[in-house]
Amino acid sequence: MRIVLDAMGSDKHPGPEVEAALKVLRQDGGELVLVGNRPELEGLLPDRPEGLEIMHAADVFEMTDHVSLGRLREAEHSMGVAMDLLKHGKADAFVTAGNTGGAMATGLTRLGRIKGVQRPALTAPFPVKGGVCMVLDAGANAECKPEYLLQFALMGSAYAAKMLGLSQPRVGLLSNGEEEGKGDDLVKAAFPLLKESGLNFVGNIEPKELFGGMVDVAVTDGFTGNVMMKASEAVARLLVDTLRESLTSSLRTKVGALLARPAFNELRKLIDSREIGAVPLLGIDGLIFVGHGRSDAKALVSAIRLARRSVEAGLLDSLRAAIEAGISQLARSRAG
Amino acid sequence: MRIVLDAMGSDKHPGPEVEAALKVLRQDGGELVLVGNRPELEGLLPDRPEGLEIMHAADVFEMTDHVSLGRLREAEHSMGVAMDLLKHGKADAFVTAGNTGGAMATGLTRLGRIKGVQRPALTAPFPVKGGVCMVLDAGANAECKPEYLLQFALMGSAYAAKMLGLSQPRVGLLSNGEEEGKGDDLVKAAFPLLKESGLNFVGNIEPKELFGGMVDVAVTDGFTGNVMMKASEAVARLLVDTLRESLTSSLRTKVGALLARPAFNELRKLIDSREIGAVPLLGIDGLIFVGHGRSDAKALVSAIRLARRSVEAGLLDSLRAAIEAGISQLARSRAG
Repeated sequence: MRIVLDAMGSDKHPGPEVEAALKVLRQDGGELVLVGNRPELEGLLPDRPEGLEIMHAADVFEMTDHVSLGRLREAEHSMGVAMDLLKHGKADAFVTAGNTGGAMATGLTRLGRIKGVQRPALTAPFPVKGGVCMVLDAGANAECKPEYLLQFALMGSAYAAKMLGLSQPRVGLLSNGEEEGKGDDLVKAAFPLLKESGLNFVGNIEPKELFGGMVDVAVTDGFTGNVMMKASEAVARLLVDTLRESLTSSLRTKVGALLARPAFNELRKLIDSREIGAVPLLGIDGLIFVGHGRSDAKALVSAIRLARRSVEAGLLDSLRAAIEAGISQLARSRAG
Repeated sequence: MRIVLDAMGSDKHPGPEVEAALKVLRQDGGELVLVGNRPELEGLLPDRPEGLEIMHAADVFEMTDHVSLGRLREAEHSMGVAMDLLKHGKADAFVTAGNTGGAMATGLTRLGRIKGVQRPALTAPFPVKGGVCMVLDAGANAECKPEYLLQFALMGSAYAAKMLGLSQPRVGLLSNGEEEGKGDDLVKAAFPLLKESGLNFVGNIEPKELFGGMVDVAVTDGFTGNVMMKASEAVARLLVDTLRESLTSSLRTKVGALLARPAFNELRKLIDSREIGAVPLLGIDGLIFVGHGRSDAKALVSAIRLARRSVEAGLLDSLRAAIEAGISQLARSRAG
């Protein structure tokens, strides 16, 4: 198995990428390819360890780059070089902490979509009571059609089955009310598709059910999903900042905070994205994991391990099969 | 000034309503009307205080009631009786902790809309860094048109000016990216309307800016706004529950928590909806404030005081003027 790591992805590239690659090879062995500026990478790697290959990419897809077809096709940026390896069967999965839109667009142009998928989705694991909930789309498609939501549900369920080891992942449709018939036009139109999908569809859910751990997969459009993801992060930050300020406001609370530190570490773990590492772009015909631009070596190690697990689990084949099965199921249901 | 209070609104009605009415009259004086089941209310009020009137309503609009035109027109439920007082100029504002959809629909049929407003909006004050941000629509209209968002912005800005005392409230358009051109189709179409509105429009905002206190008013459709509001509450609950569990897991953290209690009280205040009391239904041609079904007497007292402040501030006239001015401004801008 070979994982390709974009050496030019994170805000502080390529230091964290090189450090993460070395750590993974030292601890887990296996093969990795670092794609980026060869002279720069070789300068950082005077003694190249076994299992590590460096592949040159002349260019970087910057965080500030706008996604345009010309930019994607012409430039030999590290993401494009890396995905060509996947395309030609020379690597099994790709990890980057670079521009998410760039990764999505590069994936679409170089690898295409899984057959039957109209739009790939950003799939974010939300920390919820007792575990995680996979939310998709978390931001790739601001405008969605009901069929996209069905495809998100099929892919999210397959992901939860393979990667979280669940036999019948519970799938919910994010809405502004639990009752069938609640929601905007999109939710109302998607509901019957999900109901007939053959998935373990629990119906409409509100954020209370999502964060309460009542579902394993929550399906929504990329606008709502993105706003919800960012709102969750912002609320967590506001609460933690408020608590920190209050805790340092007097000697009494400072002492209390010191004693209670183990509890605050639990809280930090809950909202620390470095534990997660990266999120998959489900629907691209290849395994792509995108980490936060702020990723450090620890986050990138988690991301590489996640990518390896997905290859071992046969995630891509599962996604392909789930989409095919879902489409057949819907056709049968409609015909019956 | 007379405020009407729905005695049959909260989950535990009419106890909290009666208690709140008595407390407000005792502490602030003035006039209140309690609308509900007269025998029941008189049983709870053997000595009716000065300034308090009881008005009978034979029926209650239950939390589980579905909103239908027949139900709204025929039934003499407490909300309908109360709003008729507003309609006939016998009261200045209405407070209820009952069914929000019922209050909205009853308001629409009995009082109508402010001239130029196509859809009233639920307007929720979000706790943010350093204060509050008024978010509308927080749940009344799952499907919105760009013009609705302009009207929400005009009303939200007028509300923030009158009720928060701001001279040039900063208005943001909630989106999945800050740059102009980001957003779903609705946001993209609403952006130019807000830009030409004459308001202090700061452009697209993400939840980070909202919760960071960068705007006073955030405009969005009622689906996204409702999901964001509920997600914020759910995240806050998850974090507080996690913290509580961790804090009680050992003697050390228990002692720490005891010492740090003043800090936790700050946190509780931030997320305690009882401090807010109720949210206005902006766009109805009358002042209506809806509290949470779980409202207790403390929350209802806050709600009554909010309603009184809105009457004193001349909120309804401000809203009417803001809509009229916004429509003229847009026409001028389009003609110029």
